[in-house]
Amino acid sequence: MPTSRFSGAPSAGTAPALSLHQALAIGTPKAVSLWLDVVDDPIERADQLGDLTEAEAVRLTELLTVPEAVDLLDTLDLHTAVDALRIAPPARAGAVVAHLETDRAAELLRELDAAESERILGRVPADRAAVLRGLLRWPEDSVAAHMVPDVIAVDDSVTAGEAIQQVRDHSAKLRQDSHIGAYVFAVADDGRLRGVVSFRELVLADEGTLVDDLCTHEVVSVTALTDQEEAARLLVRHRLLALPVVDDADHLLGVLTADDAADIVGEETTEDAERQGGSQPLDVPYLRASPFLLWRKRIVWLLVLFVAEMYTGNVMKAFEDELDAVVALAFFIPLLIGTGGNTGTQITTTLIRAMATENVRMRDVGRVVVKELSAGSFVAIAMAGAGFVRAWMLGVEVQVMVTIALSLAAIILWSSLIASVIPLVLKKLRVDPAVVSGPMIATLVDGTGLLIYFWIAKLTLPELAGL
Amino acid sequence: MPTSRFSGAPSAGTAPALSLHQALAIGTPKAVSLWLDVVDDPIERADQLGDLTEAEAVRLTELLTVPEAVDLLDTLDLHTAVDALRIAPPARAGAVVAHLETDRAAELLRELDAAESERILGRVPADRAAVLRGLLRWPEDSVAAHMVPDVIAVDDSVTAGEAIQQVRDHSAKLRQDSHIGAYVFAVADDGRLRGVVSFRELVLADEGTLVDDLCTHEVVSVTALTDQEEAARLLVRHRLLALPVVDDADHLLGVLTADDAADIVGEETTEDAERQGGSQPLDVPYLRASPFLLWRKRIVWLLVLFVAEMYTGNVMKAFEDELDAVVALAFFIPLLIGTGGNTGTQITTTLIRAMATENVRMRDVGRVVVKELSAGSFVAIAMAGAGFVRAWMLGVEVQVMVTIALSLAAIILWSSLIASVIPLVLKKLRVDPAVVSGPMIATLVDGTGLLIYFWIAKLTLPELAGL
Repeated sequence: MPTSRFSGAPSAGTAPALSLHQALAIGTPKAVSLWLDVVDDPIERADQLGDLTEAEAVRLTELLTVPEAVDLLDTLDLHTAVDALRIAPPARAGAVVAHLETDRAAELLRELDAAESERILGRVPADRAAVLRGLLRWPEDSVAAHMVPDVIAVDDSVTAGEAIQQVRDHSAKLRQDSHIGAYVFAVADDGRLRGVVSFRELVLADEGTLVDDLCTHEVVSVTALTDQEEAARLLVRHRLLALPVVDDADHLLGVLTADDAADIVGEETTEDAERQGGSQPLDVPYLRASPFLLWRKRIVWLLVLFVAEMYTGNVMKAFEDELDAVVALAFFIPLLIGTGGNTGTQITTTLIRAMATENVRMRDVGRVVVKELSAGSFVAIAMAGAGFVRAWMLGVEVQVMVTIALSLAAIILWSSLIASVIPLVLKKLRVDPAVVSGPMIATLVDGTGLLIYFWIAKLTLPELAGL
Repeated sequence: MPTSRFSGAPSAGTAPALSLHQALAIGTPKAVSLWLDVVDDPIERADQLGDLTEAEAVRLTELLTVPEAVDLLDTLDLHTAVDALRIAPPARAGAVVAHLETDRAAELLRELDAAESERILGRVPADRAAVLRGLLRWPEDSVAAHMVPDVIAVDDSVTAGEAIQQVRDHSAKLRQDSHIGAYVFAVADDGRLRGVVSFRELVLADEGTLVDDLCTHEVVSVTALTDQEEAARLLVRHRLLALPVVDDADHLLGVLTADDAADIVGEETTEDAERQGGSQPLDVPYLRASPFLLWRKRIVWLLVLFVAEMYTGNVMKAFEDELDAVVALAFFIPLLIGTGGNTGTQITTTLIRAMATENVRMRDVGRVVVKELSAGSFVAIAMAGAGFVRAWMLGVEVQVMVTIALSLAAIILWSSLIASVIPLVLKKLRVDPAVVSGPMIATLVDGTGLLIYFWIAKLTLPELAGL
């Protein structure tokens, strides 16, 4: 059988040789099996599954063998996989869940409500169901909820040869997860984690060598309730293939594997990006989000920002006389507040990302503010020059040119200050700084920027002196 | 020795028991060694290294044993590690590079200029230097530049027992990378990749079983020049611990490991996030970026957006008479264009993220636009209502209330259209859609939104009929 190879070029536009519709129309297990061979890209598979009618989807669950269903559920995106599980007859779903990798099975069951999940777990062998129920009890954001509980642990006092025999004995009971094959963990008599050795080193070592001598004893581990994202970043930072999860007494509970860590990093970043853009995280793949869901995730922040932005109207109204006296002042309003918003957005996105990847911590507040105000000063000087030129191009009087240049500089410095301070203050208050979006900073700068503008205008323009 | 355990609570604020300054003041290898034991958080280590004088840093490279230096370089962030390599005496740097994991060594050398890198490679054993030079030749964005070239490959026609012996024989020559221990690859006579089996399955199988029977033959692989990000996402999607990299004739060149994939996903996302915020990617950790660098990465886009935003001034000037006639129109300008910008920012960030994670492809254009215009219609209705209420609160005449409501709705629909179409058009033109930032969409909407506003005002307000 040929290996499936993905080249650098996107394959967009080429229709697959066999569609799932066609395979189901043929209606034999062999046709569905052939479709799985032909269409091996998970996204393409999910796409075609999404187009099925409910009747077709049920028919599909009947035609797939259990290993095929396991393979399919393993690679599909979470939401498509959960839908597939929901639609399958419970006995069928139970058989598949029993054979899925443990962390994946728990991930899928977690998306179902308790009744649905129990209906399926009732059809899963009791010991396996117990393991899965155990995982489902951990909070969703904790690393324990995402760990593989079936780890290979051996006594730290045995030899390499004895350890391999222990692994062999365990293996009959253990799940055939390729994910857990990388490391063997050594535990002391009292069950505490003592060290780690790669399975390969264990096998290649002299049989009589003590496991304790082969092990690395400086094991990086996390406790069960550690935030999943923090654990994932720790794994990446230490370049591990699996990160052991322990309880408070240092007993080994399971491992977080590197592929799951990559998944967690990706998901958390998507949520952060959506928040940065000023909406609530979608939580479902974009193409599956209905217009109504998009509306619901966006309208709250739009209304909050709208209300926050409303006082720009009051500011404008308060300076109505000034606007009347020098109507040219109005020309520059969008430009001034737009530039202020852009400056702030640049700073918060860079800063929040840096905080998420933990380069920036609370004690760095001073450095951050000094750095941003220094950079902001350079920006202010350059943009003041640009503003002066622009005002000159519009043919306004010299005092207005000066007003524009000074206002731009002041608004940029003000925007730099609040854009760098607010995320750090939120972090101090233990609120995720990722809630600060570009639109939020832009809105804050709009109204306050107008105030700065009109104040500077009153100080600079003789026409406004008496108003 | 106790295991080092990271708990969920951040340890901010607690000073380490021994600082690197103190260890270097003591000035013995033992003091530095103790510091490595006490301070095991890579970020904390990088922080303290960043505070060293050059003389202290050189002293440190002399005090560390090679294994300690390898351990340190392995976990430090890229830039700190490269600086450390640059400052170390070449013989010392060569010894450390020779012992680093291959992909990590290549990653560090890539950051040096050719002369620096060759000075170090000259001190590395010839065969190892050749492997590293080979990796450095691949383009930086290709998966091949990030692969581990030392893979374990065996003949597909041998038995499990013979395969383990082959691995044992190879292992003397292979690097002691724990990263490559997870899989064994089977290759045919002609060198083509044929299948993959986990090392653990191989060891636990009956000795006489043919490797070919143990292998999974549907191997997901990528060609050498595949984009690193695409390869990383493929690995995550297929839940692999290592993704084989092959040449055009399907010969195995190396593997991308899951921890590197997680790293790539994280880095690429940081770059995207920075672009989304309207600046160029920093390419260095935030705290190491000088104010001047921040200025340089930000000022280009600020000026581009400033120039693009300039025509809002022309629009305002063109409608000077209208503004003079109904000065209340000016009150709503920041609110209207701000809301338009917010709507657009919400859409592009969600959409661009979805495109990066490959949920959305070119052929989905129609679905995306229909979805966004539907969601945009709901948003437009809700915000038109909010706008009407706000206008009423400011005590303006009824026709102005109607103008505000209609303009808000029209600007939101217009913003939804361009925010959803532009990223897709860029993708079609093979430009990375991540260059479309929130500020860019906001800027586009500001000027065009003003035009829409004034046109609607002219149609609605009898006072403006003659102008």
